[in-house]
Amino acid sequence: MAEPLVGIIMGSKSDLEVMKACEEQLAEFGVPCELLIASAHRNPAKVHDWAGTAAQRGIKVIIAAAGKAAHLGGVVAAYTPLPVIAVPMKTSDLGGLDSLLSMVQMPTGVPVATVAINGAKNAAILAVQILGASDEEYRAKIVAFKEQMAQQ
Amino acid sequence: MAEPLVGIIMGSKSDLEVMKACEEQLAEFGVPCELLIASAHRNPAKVHDWAGTAAQRGIKVIIAAAGKAAHLGGVVAAYTPLPVIAVPMKTSDLGGLDSLLSMVQMPTGVPVATVAINGAKNAAILAVQILGASDEEYRAKIVAFKEQMAQQ
Amino acid sequence: MAEPLVGIIMGSKSDLEVMKACEEQLAEFGVPCELLIASAHRNPAKVHDWAGTAAQRGIKVIIAAAGKAAHLGGVVAAYTPLPVIAVPMKTSDLGGLDSLLSMVQMPTGVPVATVAINGAKNAAILAVQILGASDEEYRAKIVAFKEQMAQQ
Amino acid sequence: MAEPLVGIIMGSKSDLEVMKACEEQLAEFGVPCELLIASAHRNPAKVHDWAGTAAQRGIKVIIAAAGKAAHLGGVVAAYTPLPVIAVPMKTSDLGGLDSLLSMVQMPTGVPVATVAINGAKNAAILAVQILGASDEEYRAKIVAFKEQMAQQ
Amino acid sequence: MAEPLVGIIMGSKSDLEVMKACEEQLAEFGVPCELLIASAHRNPAKVHDWAGTAAQRGIKVIIAAAGKAAHLGGVVAAYTPLPVIAVPMKTSDLGGLDSLLSMVQMPTGVPVATVAINGAKNAAILAVQILGASDEEYRAKIVAFKEQMAQQ
Amino acid sequence: MAEPLVGIIMGSKSDLEVMKACEEQLAEFGVPCELLIASAHRNPAKVHDWAGTAAQRGIKVIIAAAGKAAHLGGVVAAYTPLPVIAVPMKTSDLGGLDSLLSMVQMPTGVPVATVAINGAKNAAILAVQILGASDEEYRAKIVAFKEQMAQQ
Amino acid sequence: MAEPLVGIIMGSKSDLEVMKACEEQLAEFGVPCELLIASAHRNPAKVHDWAGTAAQRGIKVIIAAAGKAAHLGGVVAAYTPLPVIAVPMKTSDLGGLDSLLSMVQMPTGVPVATVAINGAKNAAILAVQILGASDEEYRAKIVAFKEQMAQQ
Amino acid sequence: MAEPLVGIIMGSKSDLEVMKACEEQLAEFGVPCELLIASAHRNPAKVHDWAGTAAQRGIKVIIAAAGKAAHLGGVVAAYTPLPVIAVPMKTSDLGGLDSLLSMVQMPTGVPVATVAINGAKNAAILAVQILGASDEEYRAKIVAFKEQMAQQ
Repeated sequence: MAEPLVGIIMGSKSDLEVMKACEEQLAEFGVPCELLIASAHRNPAKVHDWAGTAAQRGIKVIIAAAGKAAHLGGVVAAYTPLPVIAVPMKTSDLGGLDSLLSMVQMPTGVPVATVAINGAKNAAILAVQILGASDEEYRAKIVAFKEQMAQQ
Repeated sequence: MAEPLVGIIMGSKSDLEVMKACEEQLAEFGVPCELLIASAHRNPAKVHDWAGTAAQRGIKVIIAAAGKAAHLGGVVAAYTPLPVIAVPMKTSDLGGLDSLLSMVQMPTGVPVATVAINGAKNAAILAVQILGASDEEYRAKIVAFKEQMAQQ
Repeated sequence: MAEPLVGIIMGSKSDLEVMKACEEQLAEFGVPCELLIASAHRNPAKVHDWAGTAAQRGIKVIIAAAGKAAHLGGVVAAYTPLPVIAVPMKTSDLGGLDSLLSMVQMPTGVPVATVAINGAKNAAILAVQILGASDEEYRAKIVAFKEQMAQQ
Repeated sequence: MAEPLVGIIMGSKSDLEVMKACEEQLAEFGVPCELLIASAHRNPAKVHDWAGTAAQRGIKVIIAAAGKAAHLGGVVAAYTPLPVIAVPMKTSDLGGLDSLLSMVQMPTGVPVATVAINGAKNAAILAVQILGASDEEYRAKIVAFKEQMAQQ
Repeated sequence: MAEPLVGIIMGSKSDLEVMKACEEQLAEFGVPCELLIASAHRNPAKVHDWAGTAAQRGIKVIIAAAGKAAHLGGVVAAYTPLPVIAVPMKTSDLGGLDSLLSMVQMPTGVPVATVAINGAKNAAILAVQILGASDEEYRAKIVAFKEQMAQQ
Repeated sequence: MAEPLVGIIMGSKSDLEVMKACEEQLAEFGVPCELLIASAHRNPAKVHDWAGTAAQRGIKVIIAAAGKAAHLGGVVAAYTPLPVIAVPMKTSDLGGLDSLLSMVQMPTGVPVATVAINGAKNAAILAVQILGASDEEYRAKIVAFKEQMAQQ
Repeated sequence: MAEPLVGIIMGSKSDLEVMKACEEQLAEFGVPCELLIASAHRNPAKVHDWAGTAAQRGIKVIIAAAGKAAHLGGVVAAYTPLPVIAVPMKTSDLGGLDSLLSMVQMPTGVPVATVAINGAKNAAILAVQILGASDEEYRAKIVAFKEQMAQQ
Repeated sequence: MAEPLVGIIMGSKSDLEVMKACEEQLAEFGVPCELLIASAHRNPAKVHDWAGTAAQRGIKVIIAAAGKAAHLGGVVAAYTPLPVIAVPMKTSDLGGLDSLLSMVQMPTGVPVATVAINGAKNAAILAVQILGASDEEYRAKIVAFKEQMAQQ
C-alpha cells in the first residue's frame, strides 16, 4: 500500500463526523493519508511527536481540525516545516467564530492555511492543490476536478 | 533572472504598504515572484487572464490580498488549479472581519488558504512551505528559518 | 411569452428553497424573469457569460443570491452595467453574517444593492421599484402593493 | 437648471463630510440631485414630507445616509414607492456594524438597497445604474465608467 | 373598565407569542394596557397616528417590540414625548443582535429605553417602575414584587 | 436648593468626561440631580447603600454609567424599586459591545433601561421623559425640547 | 462529613443542568463542595451574605455560573477575598457571547477567572488546580487526571 | 532573594508594555515572580520546558499573556498541573476578541483562567487570590487591598 502523503489530525473523536468528508475526498483523488485523533491540550506529547516526525515519515501536507480554542493547527505548525491546513470546527455556542479566529489569526512566523468552518472537503482539495504545485499528476487531477464541477 | 514561482496579486494600490512585507520575505527566502495590482471587480478580465495563465507561466503558488468584500482570493481560485493563499486586509470600519469572512468562508469545491488579517509575511512563509512540500531545498530553508526564530 | 426583465442567479441549488419566494413575488407583480443556478467559483465562465450578456438579452435588473463567502453579487456586478441586487443567504454556522459582509462591503466602483439575510421577497420588490423608477406601470404596482400592506 | 433625479437625505450634518463624495460622483455622471439634512427621529415630519412627495417632484432614486440606529433608509422607504439606497455611516464605537444592520435587515415588504459602510460613492454609482436600467444614456455612462476603471 | 396606562405596539403578529408575557405581567400588576400590531414600515401612518395621540389618550408609557432592522421604537419615540421602552426580538439568523443594535443605538435627542432581547416581561416591569417613579401605589407593587422574587 | 430627583452613579472617575453631558442636559431641563462615583466591584457597600436609600431620599430615577463588564446598572437595580437607566461606556478594545451586553441583557425580574453606548445626553432626556410620564410640567419641557430639535 | 472547600453558586435553577457536571467532577476529585442557587439581581442580600461569609466557612475557591448579563461572578468577587471562577452560560439568542463578556471583562481591581461558555467541568478542574497550588495531595490528583487524559 | 512563586510568560516582547503592570502589582503584594518571553509557536521547546518544570521550581501560579491566535495559555496548561491565568492581548484589528476567544474557549480537561483583555493587573491580583486560597498571609493582603480600594 502507498505511503501516506497527507496527515490528518483532529482534536476530538467528535470531529470525525465532519472530517470523514476530508478523508473521502482525499481517497477520491487517490491520495493516501493517515489519521490521528489527539488533542493538543490533553495529549501534547503525542501531538508533538506525530507532528515532529511527519516530514520524515514522508508526509507532505498536514490537515488539522479542532474546535473552540482551536490550537491544534498552530501547535502542529510549531513542530513541522510542512504546510499545515486548518479546519475550524463549528461550535454549538459561537457557531465556530471562536475556532476560526483561534486558527487563522496566527502570529508572524508560523502561518496556518485556514479554510472555512467545517470545510473538511475543501481542506482535502487544498492539500491536493499543494501536492499539485510541484507534481503534474496531482495538478491534472485538480484540473479535471474543476472541469467536472463546472459541468454539474 | 529566475522565473517567478509565486504570483502576488492585490486588489488595490493601497494594499501595497502591507503587502511589501510579503515580497520582502519571499526575497529573503530567495523565491522569485511577480506582482500585479488588479481588482476582481474593477478589472475582472485582467484578473482572470493573469490567474488563468499563471500555471502555464510557471507560477506554483498564488498569494491574493484584498479588503472589505474581499473576493479576489476566490475569484483567482476559480481560474487556476494552483493553491491560492489569501491575505485579508484590515479595514477601517470592521477591523478586517469583513475581509476575513469574505476570504475564508469559501464554498465547497474551491478552497482558499487564508492567513491572518494583514498577515503578509505569513503568506510568504506559507508559500515557501508549499514549495517545500515537494522540494528539499525550500523545505530546508523553512527548517532554518524556524530554528532561527527559536533562537531569537 | 414576455421577455424576462429580471435575471435571478444563485450560487447553489440549495438556495432555491429560499429564493423561490423571490420568483413568486416577481410573478405576482407580473414581471417576467429568468433563473440560473451557477456558482461564481465552480463555474465562473458560465456566470461571466450570463452576466456579460444580460443587458443585451433585455434584462434590466439582476438579483444574485449566495451564501458564506458570497462573491456572486460582486462577480456579476463586475460584468454588467445593470443594477445588481444581492441576497445574502443564511448560513448554518455564522447565521449569514459572513454572506452579508461578503455581499455588502463592496469596494469603491462596483456597488451591490444588498437586502436582508434571506430577503428573497424584498429583492423582488426592490427589483420592481427599480423598474418603476422610470416606468409608471411598475411604480403603480408598487404603490398598490404598499397600500395593500398598510391595510393588512 | 435640470430637475433633480436623485434625492440625497442624511440624518446629521456630520454625515456630510462622507456624503459629499456621493454628490460629487453624481455630478461627474451629470445627474442632477437635491440634498436634505433631516433626522428621522428629530424631525420626522420633514422627512415624511420630503419622502412622500419625492416621486411627484420627479425624483427617481433616493439615497439615505445615517449612522448608529440608522432608521432613515427604512423610514424614507415607508413613504415612497421609489427605490431607496442606504449608506450606513461608520460609527466611532461599533465601526458601523450598528448602522449596517439597522439599514440592511429590513423586514419583508419594504426593502432598502444597502451599500458598504461609508459607501457614499458607490451609492451614487448604484443610483445611476438604476437610472440606466431603463435609460440608454445613463447606462452608457456606466459602461464608460467601468471601462475607465478597468484601464486605471 | 380602567383607561389604559401603557400602550404596547409590535411590528408583526409573529411578535405576539413573545410579547404576551408582557401583557400578562402588566395584568398581574393590575396595569391596564392597550395593544396594537402595526409595522413602522408597512403601515407608518397608523403607527404615527397611534404614537402621536398616545399621550392625549392617557397613555403614560409605551412599549415597542420589533425584530431585525427594528425601527419601531425609534419611530414611535419620534412622535411622542412619553418614555418608550423597546424590546428587541430574537431573530433566526443573527440571534437578535440586529434588533438590539437597531433599537438601542438611538442618536442624540431621541432615546429609547431598551431591555434584553425578547425581554417582554422585563419591559412590563420597567413600565411599572416608571409609573411608580411618581406614584406610591405602583412603587409599592414593585417593592412587593422584588420581595417575592427574593423569597423564591 | 431643590432636592435631587435624579441620581447619577458611575463606576469610575474616567466616566465623568462622557457623563458630564448628562448632568448638563438635566440642568438645562431644570432637573436637580445628585452624582456619585462608586464602583459596584470595588466599593459594593457604598453602591448598595446609595441605591437602597435613593427612593427614601426622594430620587425618582437613577442613571448608572459603567464600562466593560458593566454591572453597575444591574447591581443598582437589585437594590431599588426605581427605574434605572444604564449608559454603557465605550471601551478601548471592544468599542463598548461588552458594556452594552453587560447592561442590556438583564435576566427576568430586574430590567435596566439601556440607552446607546456613551449615550449620556439621551439618558438625561429619558430621565425627564420618565418624570414627565406623570408630571405635566416635565412633559411640557420634553414637548418643547422636541419642537426645538425639529426646527434646528 | 468533610467541610466544603469549594462553593458553587448559580444564578438560576435552569443553570443546574449544565452545572451538575461541575459538581460531579469535584466529587470525582474528592473535593467537598456546597451549592447555592441565588440570583445577584433577584436576591442580592442572599448572594452577598453567602459570598461575604464563604471564607469564614472554610471555602477556598468559589465557582459562579450565570447567563446573559452575567453579573454573578463580579458581584461575588466584590464580597470575598477568595478566587472566583466564572462559568458563562450559553444563551439562546447570542450563544453566550453576552454571558462571556459580562463575566470576563471585569474592571481593574476585581478579577474573575473565566472559563469557556458552559465550561462546567473545566471550572471544577481549575478549582482543584487552585487547591493544588499549595497542597500536594490535590496537585497529585491533577497530575493523575492529566496522565489519564493523555492515555485516552 | 525569595524564590519566585508566580511565573509570567508572554508570547512577544511587545506584550511587555502591557504586562509590566502585572509585574508591578505582584511586587506591590510582595510576591516574587519570574518572567519569560517565549512564543508557543516560534519557540515551543522553550515554552514546554519552562512550563513542564515550573512546578518543580516552586512556581505555584502561572500567568500567560498572548495576542491574536493566543495559544500560549493553553499550551502552557497542557504541560503543568498548576493553575494558569491567561491575559488576552488587545489586537489592532479585532480589538482582542480573537485573543480572548483563543484563550477562554478551552476544551474540556484543560482550563485556563482568563481575565479581561489587557487585564495585566487583574492577573496579578488573581494570582495572589489563588496563593491566598490556602495561605493566610496572602489572603490578608487581598483583604487589605480590597479595603483600600473601597476607600478610594
